[in-house]
Amino acid sequence: MKENSKIAIIGAGIAGVSAAVYAKRAGLDFSIFEGTGVGGQLLFVEKVDNYVGLVSGTKGSDLTKSLIDTLSELDISLTNEVVNKVELDKGVRINSKYEFDGMIVATGASFKKLGIKGEAEFSGKGVSYCAICDGFFFRKKDVAVIGGGNSAIEEALYLSEICNKVYLIHRRNSLRGMQYLQKELLSKSNIEVVFDSVVKEITGSEAVEAIALENVTDNSKKAINLSGVFVAVGINPNTEFLKDLVSLDEYGFITTDNGMKSSCDFLWAAGDCRKRPLRQLITAASEGAIAAINAYKHLKGHYISS
Amino acid sequence: MKENSKIAIIGAGIAGVSAAVYAKRAGLDFSIFEGTGVGGQLLFVEKVDNYVGLVSGTKGSDLTKSLIDTLSELDISLTNEVVNKVELDKGVRINSKYEFDGMIVATGASFKKLGIKGEAEFSGKGVSYCAICDGFFFRKKDVAVIGGGNSAIEEALYLSEICNKVYLIHRRNSLRGMQYLQKELLSKSNIEVVFDSVVKEITGSEAVEAIALENVTDNSKKAINLSGVFVAVGINPNTEFLKDLVSLDEYGFITTDNGMKSSCDFLWAAGDCRKRPLRQLITAASEGAIAAINAYKHLKGHYISS
Repeated sequence: MKENSKIAIIGAGIAGVSAAVYAKRAGLDFSIFEGTGVGGQLLFVEKVDNYVGLVSGTKGSDLTKSLIDTLSELDISLTNEVVNKVELDKGVRINSKYEFDGMIVATGASFKKLGIKGEAEFSGKGVSYCAICDGFFFRKKDVAVIGGGNSAIEEALYLSEICNKVYLIHRRNSLRGMQYLQKELLSKSNIEVVFDSVVKEITGSEAVEAIALENVTDNSKKAINLSGVFVAVGINPNTEFLKDLVSLDEYGFITTDNGMKSSCDFLWAAGDCRKRPLRQLITAASEGAIAAINAYKHLKGHYISS
Repeated sequence: MKENSKIAIIGAGIAGVSAAVYAKRAGLDFSIFEGTGVGGQLLFVEKVDNYVGLVSGTKGSDLTKSLIDTLSELDISLTNEVVNKVELDKGVRINSKYEFDGMIVATGASFKKLGIKGEAEFSGKGVSYCAICDGFFFRKKDVAVIGGGNSAIEEALYLSEICNKVYLIHRRNSLRGMQYLQKELLSKSNIEVVFDSVVKEITGSEAVEAIALENVTDNSKKAINLSGVFVAVGINPNTEFLKDLVSLDEYGFITTDNGMKSSCDFLWAAGDCRKRPLRQLITAASEGAIAAINAYKHLKGHYISS
């Protein structure tokens, strides 16, 4: 057993804050690093409707405020510093000056953007990056999914169960997704695949009303009226600073065991920076708790199962 | 792919309700069975302080009300029936009359009680069954853990980091827990093991103030003044109806893979009825979500990763 162990928690999205809550309550000493502010991706979320325990329709900004309040009540202050250098030896050295016995990485991920007019403006008002999170807001309505890989096809299939009509917009003339997904896609009468097309603009007044498409082969233009646009062109985990230090998957997500432990014995990961089967707020919060309790077990040298 | 698949969700604690929320939003048809009412073990919880997103100190009864509201908003009604017979063949048959294509089991578990005077009266007012849940309420105070197995020792160790003094009360003259835990226990200067003793009564006015002990070898009596009593004499998963149908561990908890799938291809488990590393509300809610999305994947025949 080691007395006075100290860990670093990197990130103050819902995974990092949940880790901090459990670490604090376990009597573990820690610092929490956050360069940009509490909340993580929540800062871009309009409404949260599937986090059990919260009133449905809770604003992302209110949930962020609740995280800030939680940190404040537990007397946890942030180290406002971006972590861009980590060295792992017997312990963790951050930005060449801070030393820790372990680290929980909860740095999240960033969705790739289309970078077109209307995308940022209507984010949370019809533009979404997550079908499971937001699909239900568009039930019985027409929506489009932008992209051509597995994620885009999966999102289109998911939305086809809820929405009236789903357009899958892809800039090439064939999909990149796995064969069985493509087959599945073709069996759905309410999914229309629009090939060779890019979205030039997302339009509307208060919320999304249409997308403007351009055909990349003949430059013809057309508009589709719809209520929702799901952007599925990729996601980048914020794990650049861990490259060559721990095992990452092909996309850069940290691979862990069930206890959130990475390939390094004293580095745990939680939330969107981790390779995980379901990318949701509730799973991120749970992973933060598990990571903290396992960090506690490891550093204090004892085990608690309940 | 199968159209019109229908699943059963058994239990309406936080895991079952979270599963229902995700199932509903995925467009999956389901029924939720609950014999005793929404909330599960929450009905016995005074305050919830470690569920990120909720105001700290949220009453268990308020969280229960929030679950009821969530079900009502999503237009989900309960089948008020205790599930006591399940048959698994190509699908699921419940109580010899209801047919489903799959089932999510979220029936929870029950902590074994001491069955002594003061235990029920002070439940949530000093009497607790979970150190990780409630330990922080007793920081720098004196507490007792009742029991002699691994869980009791783990809880005593966990509490020793937070509390002033921890008594571990055991009715035998040696502990049953694993050797390394016992060794760890002896290294803690603020843990006192009281052997050969049973708690006869928990006393106090508004909250717990003391326990009355009796020595089982010489019948001598003594009282210990303290603020908290952690009962760690066992937990029984509510899985009796699944005996001989799916794999259970030695204690009766359902064993699953990471996707919450049991040994049966169309039966998933979430929450306290499942063998799991961290028994908390937030992990139960997460598991309910994962179980529902995996049930969706399995029954609809497609996969969604985000």
